[in-house]
Amino acid sequence: MILEPECIGCLFTQMLKAFKIVKPDVSRDLVISAQKKLMKFLLDSNINEIAAPIVGKFLYRLVAETINVEDPYRKQKKEYNNLALAYYDDTKKIVKNADDPLFEAIAASAIGNTIDFAAQHEIDLINDLKNFTPQNFSINHYDDFRKELNKLAKLEGTLLILGDNTGEIVFDKLLVETIKEIYPNLEIVYAVRSAPVINDSTMEDAEEIGLAKIVKVIESCPVPGIDLKSATEEFKKYFYDENGFILSKGQGNFETLHNPDQPSNHELPDKNIYYLLKAKCNLMERIFNCAKGDLIFKQSSLTP
Amino acid sequence: MILEPECIGCLFTQMLKAFKIVKPDVSRDLVISAQKKLMKFLLDSNINEIAAPIVGKFLYRLVAETINVEDPYRKQKKEYNNLALAYYDDTKKIVKNADDPLFEAIAASAIGNTIDFAAQHEIDLINDLKNFTPQNFSINHYDDFRKELNKLAKLEGTLLILGDNTGEIVFDKLLVETIKEIYPNLEIVYAVRSAPVINDSTMEDAEEIGLAKIVKVIESCPVPGIDLKSATEEFKKYFYDENGFILSKGQGNFETLHNPDQPSNHELPDKNIYYLLKAKCNLMERIFNCAKGDLIFKQSSLTP
Repeated sequence: MILEPECIGCLFTQMLKAFKIVKPDVSRDLVISAQKKLMKFLLDSNINEIAAPIVGKFLYRLVAETINVEDPYRKQKKEYNNLALAYYDDTKKIVKNADDPLFEAIAASAIGNTIDFAAQHEIDLINDLKNFTPQNFSINHYDDFRKELNKLAKLEGTLLILGDNTGEIVFDKLLVETIKEIYPNLEIVYAVRSAPVINDSTMEDAEEIGLAKIVKVIESCPVPGIDLKSATEEFKKYFYDENGFILSKGQGNFETLHNPDQPSNHELPDKNIYYLLKAKCNLMERIFNCAKGDLIFKQSSLTP
Repeated sequence: MILEPECIGCLFTQMLKAFKIVKPDVSRDLVISAQKKLMKFLLDSNINEIAAPIVGKFLYRLVAETINVEDPYRKQKKEYNNLALAYYDDTKKIVKNADDPLFEAIAASAIGNTIDFAAQHEIDLINDLKNFTPQNFSINHYDDFRKELNKLAKLEGTLLILGDNTGEIVFDKLLVETIKEIYPNLEIVYAVRSAPVINDSTMEDAEEIGLAKIVKVIESCPVPGIDLKSATEEFKKYFYDENGFILSKGQGNFETLHNPDQPSNHELPDKNIYYLLKAKCNLMERIFNCAKGDLIFKQSSLTP
């Protein structure tokens, strides 16, 4: 989907927030100069073709360059992973003891999407985990997901998971473990970003939290979403492989893949995509007709 | 004060909010095209000299032009006046029965500043009025204000009040009445905007709610703040008159007059200014070291 009017103010707010997280004493002049560069970038871009995460890539690169640090969010990313790891054992127990461990693992993975400092919301992971009920999903295509997974296991196809943020990746690991336990022969491939961008997970994170030990981890692209133009060949192979389907985590991946009304800037594969995310902004409220904070589990071709 | 980094994202958010209030079905293309014009305006302006309300004037004019309506907020302004008028009698009783009616009227006038759709907050006037305590003022120079008013009454000077929003103006009327009752010989002059801009009060509102009957009302400038370059001669006469002091309502007036760190784009008068407002955004939190929603009653030359 292309940039919507809601995204413009949000992008400038995100930029300021990023500066405040990484360098709280940053000067007015440096921020204003970066804000002006973002305005020039937006004016020079075709706003009718560009997705918000593509602007996000430019924006977060600009923040990094302005303060002259290669991966400015490394410290926060480690903190988020550690925060999530501290909840891993308790969450695993909840999942194991649930009536339907797979559904519970899906819920934990969606709630894990809370951990995202680009969005206009506060982190409230503990409460979210404790108070979760299936009604928190305002769109829930779990039954279709489960059926498709059953079919896929028989066909020896591949489930491609598009990862999103650090911290969240720990709960994705629990989801992967849960799927593997139920479908031991299913091939699962997990995609991380191919370069540091915001607090998104990279290969370093997948190795750090032990995900790379239990599943094949590949690199997608250096964008906080999916941009086929800058994606690796390995990613494109799995992305376009028709024997399987995709589980896409988070808002950035959704924003770059969901494209109902306008010509796409890349060809979508001929297979289903399941979007699993927490609605974090006004735009998601409008698109999903839900409230901020709601969980979404939507199959691309199904209407809610 | 000049535009701060916090203002940039807020200005784009304000613009979108204005479109949604006035024309909820406005198209993406129209909004995006206005957003781009705002970017160009900011890039062409000297951001080191421009105050946010000056950009606000451009922004709200742009909204009006985009949807081709001269005073797009007329309907909302009438609603805000009527909303406030519905609380007028009850508020007047509270003020009359208070231990210090002047302080109570000041509080009501500050709480009236809640009514402002440019700001990032929700209107919660009723609760604010019912739950008010003096502790809601995080800066409170009322004692100095009172002393200065006593002195002014003896000197036959002029109190110039800089009005702000519609709705709010009803509680300003109550404040004016209260001051007149205590200081019957004091000259009070109330300034409204000289042209429609956002939901700010104009002469039409002052007449509609009966303020113009009890006090001299003059027109300041066509800006949601004070811009001496476009101000009327009559306003400048009262603004620079040294025999008196100023009570400035709201954030827009504050933002254009408060200027501690950088060269001012206009000469301030040689008299005190009392700022009475509700802190409505992150920037005010930073400047006043307060929380959003706090009331501020600050004399310009005093530190909190």
